Amino acid sequence: MALLVEKTSSGREYKVKDMTQADFGRMEIELAEVEMPGLMASRAEFGGSKPFKGARITGSLHMTIQTAVLIETLTALGAEVRWCSCNIFSTQDHAAAAIARDSASVFAWKGETLQEYWWCTERALDWGAGGGPDLIVDDGGDTTLLIHEGVKAEQIYEKSGQFPDPGSSENAEFQIVLGIIREGLKSDPKRYHKMKERLVGVSEETTTGVKRLYQMQANGSLLFPAINVNDSVTKSKFDNLYGCRHSLPDGLMRATDVMIAGKVVVVCGYGDVGKGCAASMKQAGARVIITEIDPICALQALMEGFQVLTLDDSLNQADIFVTTTGNKDIIMLDHMKKMKNNAIVCNIGHFDNEIDMLGLETYPGVKRITIKPQTDRWIFPDTNTGIIVLAEGRLMNLGCATGHPSFVMSCSFTNQVIAQLELWKEKSTGKYENKVYVLPKHLDEKVASLHLAKLGAKLTKLTQHQADYISVPVQGPYKPPHYRY
Amino acid sequence: MALLVEKTSSGREYKVKDMTQADFGRMEIELAEVEMPGLMASRAEFGGSKPFKGARITGSLHMTIQTAVLIETLTALGAEVRWCSCNIFSTQDHAAAAIARDSASVFAWKGETLQEYWWCTERALDWGAGGGPDLIVDDGGDTTLLIHEGVKAEQIYEKSGQFPDPGSSENAEFQIVLGIIREGLKSDPKRYHKMKERLVGVSEETTTGVKRLYQMQANGSLLFPAINVNDSVTKSKFDNLYGCRHSLPDGLMRATDVMIAGKVVVVCGYGDVGKGCAASMKQAGARVIITEIDPICALQALMEGFQVLTLDDSLNQADIFVTTTGNKDIIMLDHMKKMKNNAIVCNIGHFDNEIDMLGLETYPGVKRITIKPQTDRWIFPDTNTGIIVLAEGRLMNLGCATGHPSFVMSCSFTNQVIAQLELWKEKSTGKYENKVYVLPKHLDEKVASLHLAKLGAKLTKLTQHQADYISVPVQGPYKPPHYRY
Amino acid sequence: MALLVEKTSSGREYKVKDMTQADFGRMEIELAEVEMPGLMASRAEFGGSKPFKGARITGSLHMTIQTAVLIETLTALGAEVRWCSCNIFSTQDHAAAAIARDSASVFAWKGETLQEYWWCTERALDWGAGGGPDLIVDDGGDTTLLIHEGVKAEQIYEKSGQFPDPGSSENAEFQIVLGIIREGLKSDPKRYHKMKERLVGVSEETTTGVKRLYQMQANGSLLFPAINVNDSVTKSKFDNLYGCRHSLPDGLMRATDVMIAGKVVVVCGYGDVGKGCAASMKQAGARVIITEIDPICALQALMEGFQVLTLDDSLNQADIFVTTTGNKDIIMLDHMKKMKNNAIVCNIGHFDNEIDMLGLETYPGVKRITIKPQTDRWIFPDTNTGIIVLAEGRLMNLGCATGHPSFVMSCSFTNQVIAQLELWKEKSTGKYENKVYVLPKHLDEKVASLHLAKLGAKLTKLTQHQADYISVPVQGPYKPPHYRY
Amino acid sequence: MALLVEKTSSGREYKVKDMTQADFGRMEIELAEVEMPGLMASRAEFGGSKPFKGARITGSLHMTIQTAVLIETLTALGAEVRWCSCNIFSTQDHAAAAIARDSASVFAWKGETLQEYWWCTERALDWGAGGGPDLIVDDGGDTTLLIHEGVKAEQIYEKSGQFPDPGSSENAEFQIVLGIIREGLKSDPKRYHKMKERLVGVSEETTTGVKRLYQMQANGSLLFPAINVNDSVTKSKFDNLYGCRHSLPDGLMRATDVMIAGKVVVVCGYGDVGKGCAASMKQAGARVIITEIDPICALQALMEGFQVLTLDDSLNQADIFVTTTGNKDIIMLDHMKKMKNNAIVCNIGHFDNEIDMLGLETYPGVKRITIKPQTDRWIFPDTNTGIIVLAEGRLMNLGCATGHPSFVMSCSFTNQVIAQLELWKEKSTGKYENKVYVLPKHLDEKVASLHLAKLGAKLTKLTQHQADYISVPVQGPYKPPHYRY
Repeated sequence: MALLVEKTSSGREYKVKDMTQADFGRMEIELAEVEMPGLMASRAEFGGSKPFKGARITGSLHMTIQTAVLIETLTALGAEVRWCSCNIFSTQDHAAAAIARDSASVFAWKGETLQEYWWCTERALDWGAGGGPDLIVDDGGDTTLLIHEGVKAEQIYEKSGQFPDPGSSENAEFQIVLGIIREGLKSDPKRYHKMKERLVGVSEETTTGVKRLYQMQANGSLLFPAINVNDSVTKSKFDNLYGCRHSLPDGLMRATDVMIAGKVVVVCGYGDVGKGCAASMKQAGARVIITEIDPICALQALMEGFQVLTLDDSLNQADIFVTTTGNKDIIMLDHMKKMKNNAIVCNIGHFDNEIDMLGLETYPGVKRITIKPQTDRWIFPDTNTGIIVLAEGRLMNLGCATGHPSFVMSCSFTNQVIAQLELWKEKSTGKYENKVYVLPKHLDEKVASLHLAKLGAKLTKLTQHQADYISVPVQGPYKPPHYRY
Repeated sequence: MALLVEKTSSGREYKVKDMTQADFGRMEIELAEVEMPGLMASRAEFGGSKPFKGARITGSLHMTIQTAVLIETLTALGAEVRWCSCNIFSTQDHAAAAIARDSASVFAWKGETLQEYWWCTERALDWGAGGGPDLIVDDGGDTTLLIHEGVKAEQIYEKSGQFPDPGSSENAEFQIVLGIIREGLKSDPKRYHKMKERLVGVSEETTTGVKRLYQMQANGSLLFPAINVNDSVTKSKFDNLYGCRHSLPDGLMRATDVMIAGKVVVVCGYGDVGKGCAASMKQAGARVIITEIDPICALQALMEGFQVLTLDDSLNQADIFVTTTGNKDIIMLDHMKKMKNNAIVCNIGHFDNEIDMLGLETYPGVKRITIKPQTDRWIFPDTNTGIIVLAEGRLMNLGCATGHPSFVMSCSFTNQVIAQLELWKEKSTGKYENKVYVLPKHLDEKVASLHLAKLGAKLTKLTQHQADYISVPVQGPYKPPHYRY
Repeated sequence: MALLVEKTSSGREYKVKDMTQADFGRMEIELAEVEMPGLMASRAEFGGSKPFKGARITGSLHMTIQTAVLIETLTALGAEVRWCSCNIFSTQDHAAAAIARDSASVFAWKGETLQEYWWCTERALDWGAGGGPDLIVDDGGDTTLLIHEGVKAEQIYEKSGQFPDPGSSENAEFQIVLGIIREGLKSDPKRYHKMKERLVGVSEETTTGVKRLYQMQANGSLLFPAINVNDSVTKSKFDNLYGCRHSLPDGLMRATDVMIAGKVVVVCGYGDVGKGCAASMKQAGARVIITEIDPICALQALMEGFQVLTLDDSLNQADIFVTTTGNKDIIMLDHMKKMKNNAIVCNIGHFDNEIDMLGLETYPGVKRITIKPQTDRWIFPDTNTGIIVLAEGRLMNLGCATGHPSFVMSCSFTNQVIAQLELWKEKSTGKYENKVYVLPKHLDEKVASLHLAKLGAKLTKLTQHQADYISVPVQGPYKPPHYRY
Repeated sequence: MALLVEKTSSGREYKVKDMTQADFGRMEIELAEVEMPGLMASRAEFGGSKPFKGARITGSLHMTIQTAVLIETLTALGAEVRWCSCNIFSTQDHAAAAIARDSASVFAWKGETLQEYWWCTERALDWGAGGGPDLIVDDGGDTTLLIHEGVKAEQIYEKSGQFPDPGSSENAEFQIVLGIIREGLKSDPKRYHKMKERLVGVSEETTTGVKRLYQMQANGSLLFPAINVNDSVTKSKFDNLYGCRHSLPDGLMRATDVMIAGKVVVVCGYGDVGKGCAASMKQAGARVIITEIDPICALQALMEGFQVLTLDDSLNQADIFVTTTGNKDIIMLDHMKKMKNNAIVCNIGHFDNEIDMLGLETYPGVKRITIKPQTDRWIFPDTNTGIIVLAEGRLMNLGCATGHPSFVMSCSFTNQVIAQLELWKEKSTGKYENKVYVLPKHLDEKVASLHLAKLGAKLTKLTQHQADYISVPVQGPYKPPHYRY
């Protein structure tokens, strides 16, 4: 795919797979709107006043139908938007086409190379001569990373005249990042500094990105304010948990059609994502084994009837392996070689380094048979048996299925809208320093309340006497900050 | 699609969508073989002796990857095979291509018209000058119906010289059947009589077809022996129940990506299929309402925590409606008009007459928007709201997804192989009259036992003392005929 | 306890633990009536016409609160009743007291010796000079056994003058039975013959008793007609399944207060009882292992996510062992010696011979510590560790808790009432031979329908067109005899 | 019961129901020890060094078998202990007897009057001339309340000479508290001041007590340091959730034997306790309706398939009502009057004011029939129908059953031991001010890890590379403070 920016008749820049899918995307967007009450309520509440008037928002987040509804909520509130995906396999091409045609600049397609991925990221950040975005919606923190690395490289260059050296990293992807920054430096040695200056802040979607932000906050390197959307209750306890409970079986079925009942499934990690995955597999009739490092999560797993073992102890009995840890080096080549023939290996947690894809790809004599896109059988020469790896080790629910369903993403994305509104409203007040913030509980409760009517729920109202008795306002917030839900 | 029979280089007849998908089909067939231990064990046990040598088998059963493994088991045992699908949407085109190229005559593609469907059925029955098949594998009984109606028409023609009159039926599909028989009569007025003479028997896959067979047995019109495979325990209590538990959410997700958690789902009917559907929806976090006519099944539903209501009482609260009854006229136009906007309506039980598709299609001013194949939004002019109908009211798990997974179909299809073997072995002994038979329990238990090792199970063995104590043989069968499992 | 029959002021014979508990029993009976709609509906329907007028009914069935409602339904319909329990631990003394005081002759208390147990059985059969009962309600078949063994002994005595020799059996309990018959013979050598002559028939409650009946039918020794109540769908698929799902955790909690979550539970047998037990343990957060001899039931267990192993393979990991097989010699001494310290061993299926109680009791040096009645810790001298055995190996749900709850027993007992009515109505018509019969399906469906309103359910009605389409009457029965539910 | 302190032969003070139950209590304590690995590990780790040497600990916490193991852990670590229960129905008399005989001063019996309850509390605080305790283990905060109210009254008395006036409160129980303080004042006007001076701190067990502590911290009235044990993850996410999941059905079954399957259960509140209750009822086959004020918890309930309604909307359909809110005035007289006949009403959350017991007791013409202790049927004169109230509106799992099982209480109580150790170790360091503290996460994780081996779990170990990658120490703690589990 030639990396050339295209333009709509109205002059909007984009790069997508197939513009003829825009009508199909539009129909699915319209269906999704009915399932995303939080976003539609935001349009109803704020659409008239256009609070984002004048704001440029860059988003780096799976370019799906649900994200399309988020993007059009941001534009309905007055923003200009440029978007890329945060995963090479997660784009739904018909969603990208509809948005590119109708609403915002999109640079995303399903099945990008890593080189293409970072080109798209750069395009989404490139608002032309006037510099970068005012706000960033980030997922996993790649956009935030690029700016931070860019600024770092510019500082070194300014001091020493040295360009960043892609060869200095062993990580293939980071080599690409350094290459991009190097090229940028050549054309404008202040590019990322200018971007940083303009930037009001970022709202980050997911655990992995949030961890990076807290590390930067801890070592003082964070360059702009960040709102941690992931840890809104209505995000981490819904999207991570109920979203994965939905999308893990969806991805398994679409990729392999395997019967889950009767199988043994190993879920590595029993955090929110792992809890959702384990629940879905149990419910489908599988026997589930959990691996954990944290004794508290391990004890939770036991209370739900799951066996807690190490990966080594479960290799020879399991049929399906799912990583949900957010850590690296979970399933290594040696593990994979000991698995049963046609064991399924996939990752729903984090980057593709949860699974030792490099070890697998470079194993002498290994044979890769692509059954269909994102479903590969790898055959070991020693045994002539093989394993099935989904989405090349990347997020299988987005690579093999369509990600989380609209309703739960409406919760997550309503938090994004609120976070972006908050950053923009306070852009000049100094309320937010270069730190990581969580949304206040009353906003979290508001997000939830916007989703109740759709499901036919009726809330009970506290009387004033009852509210006084438990020392909360009648209108909430109802829980102390440490409450765990 | 021009209805012309094609031929492979080896001279095998076929008609499929796209022969270039054969390699993809072959890869998926190879994966499925690992998941279908009963069929592979049958090949191992009988492949050497070729018990089907000389037998012509016509099959009318969803042309999926799993069916491909069944077909190649029949051919591995020595049979010649011609195949069509028993549902216009259920063919997986890559499976059809692989079989057509490698193993048997196939006439099937996804998205047949009714006219095409019956043309395919006729082709599968047409073994050339030598007449019809020796054995039939039927699903739903359409092939059996065609022969019975053909014989009936030939008898009338012989007596009265009258051709069947398609206009005599109000049912569009039956008009087609009569048309086909009429054309057949013109070329050979003994065609179906000859077929009947040659035919050894049929093995029937599913509840609907079995009901038809028992009706024919009851009124004395059954023309050849039939084995009721559906009521093997390892079929009806596995495929119907666990198969649908798997494939209902699969179909819903692929067709609509709707979040099931939090939704209200009405399952019409709580037989084996309904039990599987209700379980899957409950487990995915939905609230399930059951409609039932049978007080025993209704009481079972209550014991599992489901609410039992009439359809009318649940119209305004439900988001998803699934019919599983095997009856007709379950969800009528008036019901659909009262549903919530974007309510999903689908059928996993039987023919498309469970849902009043005719009423919907002919409602004045109704608008149909095809989101994607097998997913239609129908908009009522009165309210401008709509409902989403899957697979045009036909089996949604086959129309919108890939049907039941391999493992459970291995149980069903091993029963088919055993039934076909039994009919063929006894073809000249007179053991089977023109009645409906169920397989003996020890064969049912054998089918189950062939599937245990794959799932790592270890059976306990009775001692002779224990066997005597409960009056069963040490090797089984272990249960009386009336045992319900 | 001196075995003397007592009399109420009205002259009714009885022997119970404590007559002062009658008021408490009455209150619980009144609560139970609200939960037993089938029995109360029977009273409403038949109470006026007193169809049992003149009938003497002997019952041998756990003398619980629920049975009290059954007894008073029989008396409300005009019967005279004498009752004993069919298990030495299952009597609820307040229920026995209330019935003895108000309604029928009762001979039963919690914690009978075997000698007392058979004395009670004999008393319940002893209607005075006029001989035995007209009808028997049996559970497990002990009363039926006594009459058959009595008749057999009388025949031998008549021919040879020989008395039965208790020493001829190795079984301690059967020695008692022979002793009773021997004493009976001495006073009246035609006692059991006379009983047999008068007897119209028996209705049998449970799997174990039904098995005995079918064996007698098979070898031609059955002396009177029998109705198999156990295999009514509304009995075996409700009481056995949902009853045990309720009462297994109940018994475990009352006996041991053990936390079920996190534990490993072995359920021996996956029939209806085993299915209920496994479901309850899974739901409470345990990990469940199944042992099975039947490959079909084993495959069902796998489909629900249970591991299927042999008992030997699970001894060292399990915390709780439950036998549900209806067979003998399931958990032997050698198994118990290899279990973890304080492993809990119990039986909910059948007689106490599922567990090798004899082996345990006679193991040299074993020490028994009674924590509380029906909860014993047995300590092995070799290891100084022990296991906890519930209810001395007898039915733990009745020994340690109160058996199945009222609602599900209402289903079972309404079948009993209907069976008794049928036998009595047809007593002179010759309709029933000395065979085992199952109730017709329309009565089974009627039992179910009597229980729906209490749970707020609304049935759907078939139209005539729909009924014709599936070939059933509008009013049912709706299913073929082989239907498995 | 005459309120006289008794003494053991060794001179230890106590007041229990029946000292002859001590042996039975001892046997159950020994069983419980096997199920409480955290407490036994504490004895193994600290028993040698006697860290509590010289410490007087007063406990006010349900005097059950599990608490007995806690008490004997405290004494094994060197403490002197005096104990009372924190609920009038929760004492297990055999546990109280065993502890009184063998280990500590106990003032507690099942079925105390309120007057007796506070007498017991006072006795537990009364260490003789030397004043009060060094440490308090509190549950619900009654002991803490008594000291705070006592100090307040002494301050007023010192200033104004005024005695507290019981008549000044409308709350019957608080009148008793004031009466006790009044009597104390007369004998020693500095009694509670002296107590406060000696006191090192309190560790509080439950939500209700913790709420009171945070209120006192907020208004500056807290008189000594407090450790909030409730909000340890290994307490609130285990005891509250899994404990209630176990003990709600246990209490329902023991009190009423009602069949849960098929019933409609309303759970008021969907916090940790409500989540456990709802899960257990769903699993037992009930249909569950949730009432909630908090939109986030309501949305969680919906995601699990529960219906969310108001209490008013569910009155006429529900069979069982459970309050879990920690608030007051949840089920009022008017609600109860509209319920179905024999609806069961109970509280597992908090004090008896969740249910309007006062309104019920004082309703004109209402009739109370005690079925058995803690199970009352209340009949309304208007309708002559009634409801069944458990444990007089107090905690039903403790009043009608035996509370939470040992294993989960081992988690909670190991937190208590750690909290008490921490307070005592830091008694002179000034580390703890008069504020409320939560235990640090590494201790929380330690509590969990002490419970894994018993359940056969094997933890995975992080490599140093992995630990660095996610920025945690290899040995933990593994999660940020805001993590919700």
